[in-house]
Amino acid sequence: MYQPIQPLNSELHAEALAYQDQLTKPPGSLGRLEQLGALFAAAQEQLKPSLDKVSIRVFAADHGVAEEGVSAFPQEVTTEMVRNFSRGGAAITVLARQLNADFKVVNAGTLTELEPLPQVEDARVAAGSANFCRESAMTPLQLQAALELGRQAAAEAAEQGTHLFIGGEMGIANTTAATALAAALLQQPAQSLVGPGTGIDRAGIDRKAAVIDRALALHQPQLDSPLAILQHLGGLEIAALCGAYLGCAQRGLPVLVDGFITTSAALVAVRINPDLRPWLLFSHNSAEPGHRLMQQAMAAEPLLDLGMRLGEGSGAAVCVPLLQSACRLQSEMATFAEASVSENLI
Amino acid sequence: MYQPIQPLNSELHAEALAYQDQLTKPPGSLGRLEQLGALFAAAQEQLKPSLDKVSIRVFAADHGVAEEGVSAFPQEVTTEMVRNFSRGGAAITVLARQLNADFKVVNAGTLTELEPLPQVEDARVAAGSANFCRESAMTPLQLQAALELGRQAAAEAAEQGTHLFIGGEMGIANTTAATALAAALLQQPAQSLVGPGTGIDRAGIDRKAAVIDRALALHQPQLDSPLAILQHLGGLEIAALCGAYLGCAQRGLPVLVDGFITTSAALVAVRINPDLRPWLLFSHNSAEPGHRLMQQAMAAEPLLDLGMRLGEGSGAAVCVPLLQSACRLQSEMATFAEASVSENLI
Repeated sequence: MYQPIQPLNSELHAEALAYQDQLTKPPGSLGRLEQLGALFAAAQEQLKPSLDKVSIRVFAADHGVAEEGVSAFPQEVTTEMVRNFSRGGAAITVLARQLNADFKVVNAGTLTELEPLPQVEDARVAAGSANFCRESAMTPLQLQAALELGRQAAAEAAEQGTHLFIGGEMGIANTTAATALAAALLQQPAQSLVGPGTGIDRAGIDRKAAVIDRALALHQPQLDSPLAILQHLGGLEIAALCGAYLGCAQRGLPVLVDGFITTSAALVAVRINPDLRPWLLFSHNSAEPGHRLMQQAMAAEPLLDLGMRLGEGSGAAVCVPLLQSACRLQSEMATFAEASVSENLI
Repeated sequence: MYQPIQPLNSELHAEALAYQDQLTKPPGSLGRLEQLGALFAAAQEQLKPSLDKVSIRVFAADHGVAEEGVSAFPQEVTTEMVRNFSRGGAAITVLARQLNADFKVVNAGTLTELEPLPQVEDARVAAGSANFCRESAMTPLQLQAALELGRQAAAEAAEQGTHLFIGGEMGIANTTAATALAAALLQQPAQSLVGPGTGIDRAGIDRKAAVIDRALALHQPQLDSPLAILQHLGGLEIAALCGAYLGCAQRGLPVLVDGFITTSAALVAVRINPDLRPWLLFSHNSAEPGHRLMQQAMAAEPLLDLGMRLGEGSGAAVCVPLLQSACRLQSEMATFAEASVSENLI
């Protein structure tokens, strides 16, 4: 957990940015793609980076707080969707095929046990988290086990030589947990962060805010560190994501953060160790109101704004080709000298 | 030119949007990707569209107005960059490889003749356009020939069964021509539209605005139709793009518009035939100030905003995988019924 995170290679980063100005285009004309290319150059410590291998891990878990009626979908949907991931019919699995990505679901704690399924790793820490309106979402031991699950996923991806890690999530009621984490970490009232999740109405949003306020009041005395906040208000898949992000940065592996839930995991992780931040890329603005506030707290500049709010890692997955373009442009474009093209007159 | 354009199949469009709500995700949670999937479904008249085949045509030409000192680069760069396209070292060629796209440069009128080059079609209508500060950019015959060049490119792409057409451009000083077109079509003063192009400074921007104002004053009496505006103030590659866009729509082939120059061609084309509009997709906001005004005039909602301002078709090319994701999600996701996933409670 507290293993140190190396900084990005700033020398190579500066070299890569300078190299961009030698490529056959007006300086700066590729906009943010130039900075992304330079970031992967620094992460890979080579001027010409590759981005062929992408690992996607979707962490699934159930949430005790679902019994408060905070979701538009019944709790069975968590396991039904894990089966849908396994069969390749869900959005993230369609996108993983498009990217030819290494894809796996990690069952961090569905309420009921699942039959063995292709592409699904059974690693249930518990039968879902507890209802945090009444008790801590996780015990300290469950929290450590879930963090370790994520760290192992990061280690496995890094050992396979992946160039980019994407974490996704599935868990009915997990926008409620993510909003509670955001409220505690940003010290904001729930009402200013809470949104429709998968599609609840105005009354549902108010109920969700009230549920979060009750939980914040109950656990307030214990919420004295990012880890304590995660233990009391988070969820098993969110803790696993948090562990995965820290594990990736410890191994020098860039992470592409998805939407609202994964951003809450990233915020916890950055509060645990701020050295993580340079290794995080942010994919998109989700439609969930608290998302932008969490991103601002990390000075995140998401790449896309397409009104997506699905989760699963889907918003990150659709961003990957942009990062691949950035790496290819950095690696494959000719310089002015190589191409005998005249440079800027000014 | 005035061959009719078919409307998008509105019945299939509605059916595709309705089908999106059966897919295993909260309704609307894929945001704009849902609308894009439905648009390709309507264009291809099938519920499950494909987007494997992409045609990229970069039209190159020189501009007489370059002699007014409006560009940061010397005029030789047009032909030098055509050679760079041919050798695969330019941004658009790197991106075309990433997309496995059908790529070709069409030389619509470089100042000097080019030696035979792989992937470059010699179709020079003239040795560049004339300096529109002194005379019409093109003669009526040159305009017709350039439009026809674009129409032929569209016809060729459509015959090859392509799913998406991208037009790019290369031509030193062509932001000046595009800004002049925008000023005439939107009836805006040059000063409100003019920008740094490939990188001129403040004094250069003022010079560019003065050049455009002189041209507008000179040709004012003749600027009585979109075609007349194109003939007097445009350029050979811009006219070819205009012809290509109209040709694509006449054949039911969606077009992805790139940046500032191609958007000026799209605006001329939409003014010639407003039925073109539903076939146009807009890729990104370029950093050039007049771009947004032209887009607004067409109610365009560009997909990306990454500060790109390179042209060549590069901003459109980086957008293609988003459209491919939209088509794959529309085509490959399981429905709630197929996946036995419980639907929304509400």
